Amino acid sequence: MKLRIIVTLKPGVLDPQGKAIEHALGSLGFAGIESVRAGKLFELDVADDTSDEAIDAMCRQLLANTVIEKYRVEKAA
Amino acid sequence: MKLRIIVTLKPGVLDPQGKAIEHALGSLGFAGIESVRAGKLFELDVADDTSDEAIDAMCRQLLANTVIEKYRVEKAA
Repeated sequence: MKLRIIVTLKPGVLDPQGKAIEHALGSLGFAGIESVRAGKLFELDVADDTSDEAIDAMCRQLLANTVIEKYRVEKAA
Repeated sequence: MKLRIIVTLKPGVLDPQGKAIEHALGSLGFAGIESVRAGKLFELDVADDTSDEAIDAMCRQLLANTVIEKYRVEKAA
């Protein structure tokens, strides 16, 4: 089973990487950049019988720092 | 206009970060992990009149290293 786990910073958490990219795009001459938020993406291939609870636990224990990050699990079709 | 840019390693490119996560999940006791690939996600908010060519150029010039990475642009509804 293919999973896609998207980890992004919680709203309100400062995103220095996003800010740096925003400024870099501006200095490269790109106009109209209102905001940039950087995040992580994990593409997992797991056994079909992997439970939602186990997937959740993988995210909470390793893939996301739930103090400042939120995550979303997308199951590939 | 909200964009989501997903940057992942090209197939065949070694993914040490993914491998490390794979082993860590195993040592945390999670079974059935067949593979893990790590990537990047950028959420941009740009002016509505930003052209596809400009978005492509942002990806090629800054957000992705097209030698080893591929990217995909998803326009949020």
